[in-house]
Amino acid sequence: MNHTPTVSAITDEDIFDGHIGGKLSVELTSPLETQRDLSIAYTPGVAQVSRAIATDATLAKRYTWTDRLVVVVSDGSAVLGLGDIGPRASLPVMEGKSALFKKFAGLNSIPLVLDTKDVDEIVETLIRLRPSFGAVNLEDISAPRCFEIERRVVDALDCPVMHDDQHGTAIVVLAALHGAVRVLDRDIEPLKVVISGAGAAGVACANILLAAGVNDVVVLDSKGVVSSAREDLNAVKIDLAARTNPRGVHGGAAEALDGADVFLGVSAGKIPEELIASMAPNSIVFALSNPDPEILPEDAKKHAAIVATGRSDFPNQINNVLAFPGVFKGALDAGARRITENMKIAAAKAILSVVADELGPEKIVPSPLDPRVAPAVAEAVAAAARADGVA
Amino acid sequence: MNHTPTVSAITDEDIFDGHIGGKLSVELTSPLETQRDLSIAYTPGVAQVSRAIATDATLAKRYTWTDRLVVVVSDGSAVLGLGDIGPRASLPVMEGKSALFKKFAGLNSIPLVLDTKDVDEIVETLIRLRPSFGAVNLEDISAPRCFEIERRVVDALDCPVMHDDQHGTAIVVLAALHGAVRVLDRDIEPLKVVISGAGAAGVACANILLAAGVNDVVVLDSKGVVSSAREDLNAVKIDLAARTNPRGVHGGAAEALDGADVFLGVSAGKIPEELIASMAPNSIVFALSNPDPEILPEDAKKHAAIVATGRSDFPNQINNVLAFPGVFKGALDAGARRITENMKIAAAKAILSVVADELGPEKIVPSPLDPRVAPAVAEAVAAAARADGVA
Repeated sequence: MNHTPTVSAITDEDIFDGHIGGKLSVELTSPLETQRDLSIAYTPGVAQVSRAIATDATLAKRYTWTDRLVVVVSDGSAVLGLGDIGPRASLPVMEGKSALFKKFAGLNSIPLVLDTKDVDEIVETLIRLRPSFGAVNLEDISAPRCFEIERRVVDALDCPVMHDDQHGTAIVVLAALHGAVRVLDRDIEPLKVVISGAGAAGVACANILLAAGVNDVVVLDSKGVVSSAREDLNAVKIDLAARTNPRGVHGGAAEALDGADVFLGVSAGKIPEELIASMAPNSIVFALSNPDPEILPEDAKKHAAIVATGRSDFPNQINNVLAFPGVFKGALDAGARRITENMKIAAAKAILSVVADELGPEKIVPSPLDPRVAPAVAEAVAAAARADGVA
Repeated sequence: MNHTPTVSAITDEDIFDGHIGGKLSVELTSPLETQRDLSIAYTPGVAQVSRAIATDATLAKRYTWTDRLVVVVSDGSAVLGLGDIGPRASLPVMEGKSALFKKFAGLNSIPLVLDTKDVDEIVETLIRLRPSFGAVNLEDISAPRCFEIERRVVDALDCPVMHDDQHGTAIVVLAALHGAVRVLDRDIEPLKVVISGAGAAGVACANILLAAGVNDVVVLDSKGVVSSAREDLNAVKIDLAARTNPRGVHGGAAEALDGADVFLGVSAGKIPEELIASMAPNSIVFALSNPDPEILPEDAKKHAAIVATGRSDFPNQINNVLAFPGVFKGALDAGARRITENMKIAAAKAILSVVADELGPEKIVPSPLDPRVAPAVAEAVAAAARADGVA
């Protein structure tokens, strides 16, 4: 297979032309051509529907679009690998996300970008808007604020809420790691895993891997290994240090990667090829930073048995689109009031189940375009919601 | 023409069936079928567009959907003639409004309903959401809060903002009154006009009629004629009293309507037929309350020369849909930073211009379904915006 990025065939003009006027359109679900149409959908008919909902608020789920509407919410503070570029500049990413919700899960979705980075203000804005939507996909909000915002929004709202950069990433990484070890005929528990990045994705990936039985996780931030020996850690990292780095590794990426089995990159930092070369035989490299992976796949491939990135234009794309459309569809299908840990684990298993018979070194997860994924994930997530009693 | 409401042919089942799942859908403006599509619309391509907007924020107008996106914002406190039914119950009305924006002006529109009636909270929520949209249609917010909310949102945001219950209604009423006097070969200035309702629509109609040269406007609220003699008036009504009721009429609807030329109903109150009978010969009755007009058209018609309502199922429908799609389209087409008085007056003239050669007692305004209206209004509004220097 040719590993040269196929992106070379896409010009700047293609990209900018593809964004003129934005990527979303609001359409009518039934025609408004006649006086009769107008009398049903607008005055006087609409008054009957409004009266009915005023009497029984639960009817809003049936007679408005909100029950199938996911708002994609961002403050633009941690967009892709681009950082804090602000709400306006984040919009093309959020529109893309909304487009993917429709494409893969048939859900309506709109971007809401906020001109504030204040945690209290973001939370209270969503509480005020609660009657307008059915679920909240938090997106590209920087750590550690993202952890508090998600926790508080989950607590405040009686609907599915998920910070996709944390849990969407973690779900797909777990699915991909299971796929990789199956291809290599290895087990997941004894792997030495190094996670580069202690932001939203890094913390969530560490958590889901620990929950899945991986014993040896070492997390790197910009200062080196997150360990209890350090005195510069915030509350989230102190918690992380207590649960990771069981061998007490000190130092930076070189010390962490020496002899490691898995490299998981979820930061914008680069990793030199010689550090990948220092990993154990049969190693696994997930270089997920977007748009620029921590190491180019062709370089990693010289030393690793399995290589994956987050990009559309390389094989083994570990992209959240494998998770979030199905997770939200399943949660909304089930009428779930929240998204539980079991629902996330069920999603990871369902992603892998779709390609169980097709696995190989360049196919450890389904293609992001595989139409079988979202329905399988939705079914598994809805079942887990019912089993957990949140639906 | 048969004046029996054609709504009798529409069943409850028709209406509720027409609302299942809501009336809006978010669709993609271009396909997401291939890896190439994904690389353009999502990662890695989208990063280039985000980087460009981060460098030059004005590019968000060109490369996102927000420049053509009107948010329909309500707290559900004054919905149709139903009153304070809350944000959830208001949603079918707001979805209908958004559908009309697309149908008649080709604009994208989404409802945002707020679970707060606090003026400060509503204003600050819209300020925080500012990067998410291109214009604000305030809807069904009760008086007198609506006046302060509109004023403060207009001041805070650099985009078109209009409380449609005020100005959309006023624009269409002015167009219809010009149409009616042309049919009756009368002049507008000497008319004695009685407005029933001193809420959002009543105040705005009084203002636009005074601005258009009507000298004798008497406004009724639930306590009777709004006059300087009363001591129970809020600030908005004190201001109104100072500019209306030049003959110093005292009392209620009976005293006000005796000998009047025009009745304009924009409240939920009923008007007995004998009061319509007491009006001057050749009178004009606009009974605009929705869904139930202040007096049924067949009763008013026994005494008045021209009768109009707000409903789809009677002739002479005075409906805001004649104004708001074109007003917002024109404002956005011109890149207007606000909506001025001249833009509203231009809209009223443009509405009437479409049917200048078709006027009659049962056609004082175009049909709400007339596809010529919104483009004519948009063109006139855009020209007025440029003339006023706000574009």
